[in-house]
Amino acid sequence: MSKSTVVQEVEAANAQYAGRFGEKLSKLPIPPARKFAILTCMDARMHASKLFGLEEGDAHIIRNAGGRASDDAIRSLVISYKLLGTKEFFVVHHTNCGMVTFNNGVMAGLLANSLETAVHDGTAWKDVGQGPGSAEAAKIDWLTFTDDRQAVIDDVKKVRNHPLVPKSIPVYGYLYDVRTGKLEEIAEATEIGKAA
Amino acid sequence: MSKSTVVQEVEAANAQYAGRFGEKLSKLPIPPARKFAILTCMDARMHASKLFGLEEGDAHIIRNAGGRASDDAIRSLVISYKLLGTKEFFVVHHTNCGMVTFNNGVMAGLLANSLETAVHDGTAWKDVGQGPGSAEAAKIDWLTFTDDRQAVIDDVKKVRNHPLVPKSIPVYGYLYDVRTGKLEEIAEATEIGKAA
Repeated sequence: MSKSTVVQEVEAANAQYAGRFGEKLSKLPIPPARKFAILTCMDARMHASKLFGLEEGDAHIIRNAGGRASDDAIRSLVISYKLLGTKEFFVVHHTNCGMVTFNNGVMAGLLANSLETAVHDGTAWKDVGQGPGSAEAAKIDWLTFTDDRQAVIDDVKKVRNHPLVPKSIPVYGYLYDVRTGKLEEIAEATEIGKAA
Repeated sequence: MSKSTVVQEVEAANAQYAGRFGEKLSKLPIPPARKFAILTCMDARMHASKLFGLEEGDAHIIRNAGGRASDDAIRSLVISYKLLGTKEFFVVHHTNCGMVTFNNGVMAGLLANSLETAVHDGTAWKDVGQGPGSAEAAKIDWLTFTDDRQAVIDDVKKVRNHPLVPKSIPVYGYLYDVRTGKLEEIAEATEIGKAA
């Protein structure tokens, strides 16, 4: 099977990176040097290392659709502090997130119709694909939200109140503006997430 | 409350980034330009944008402890292709992963004892913290593994066989070597993940 353009580009970029990979990087230990973890969105516009100022070895980065404090994100945060020594957590969502454009019912409907990419006409999602789809989508909580600031507050609260997250770890809440590149602290979230 | 050193550093790095954030970046659309998504580990040594060659707007990046194909990672991958048009998926684990150093029983035991960071003495994890801990950890599957190559194969298989992942999307399997910076394709995984 011939490799796709994307695979060829990724492999070429990686060969360049590996070619300049020095001894210092090869000896980095597993625990993050700067002892913090960030939970944020998978959004392609968020260049995590640039926007937070991270180099190899600095911090754990956990990403999912929406940057939500899902059970899996909590699993990752607990491993981060319990085994690898992080002492501060950031929850960072962003403006113009795709997660506000649908809800569980919309997603279940689209996927029941087909497994092809839907289109958004500026008002609503429309499925243009050919079936078959799958009823499996109706069993999933897609973790959408309607207000980006409130979602930061909700997720900081969920991490703060989780029985496996120690009260000594502060949980900060931020919203990243994809139009300006700026992080804005959501003070109400950080207040909720403060260490005891 | 005064800000921690980490918060001050992150905010300063972000202010620098936002200061050079140009008009082009401010207008990036939500769908990833290069139409692919990567599922990988939260490990601090993996500088995703450098090692895969990614700029702002290129690709979705999903990260959790181990880069596992958890239900939450599948949720994110489905949103990625169904609403945002990605057409290829990468599953990338790495060498020297912390996930091979424990299992569900070890983690439940450590967390039942305390919510402080444990230490690894080269042979096993030891809890040195003061209680109280929490029995909640025994309810969680920590998604550990014992063989890094097999874990890539297992996760590609899980994504490939998920009823909400279309057969038209190839799922590639790679192992990243944290000592050399090199991505190695796990041919057996990519073969399992090939598009139909």
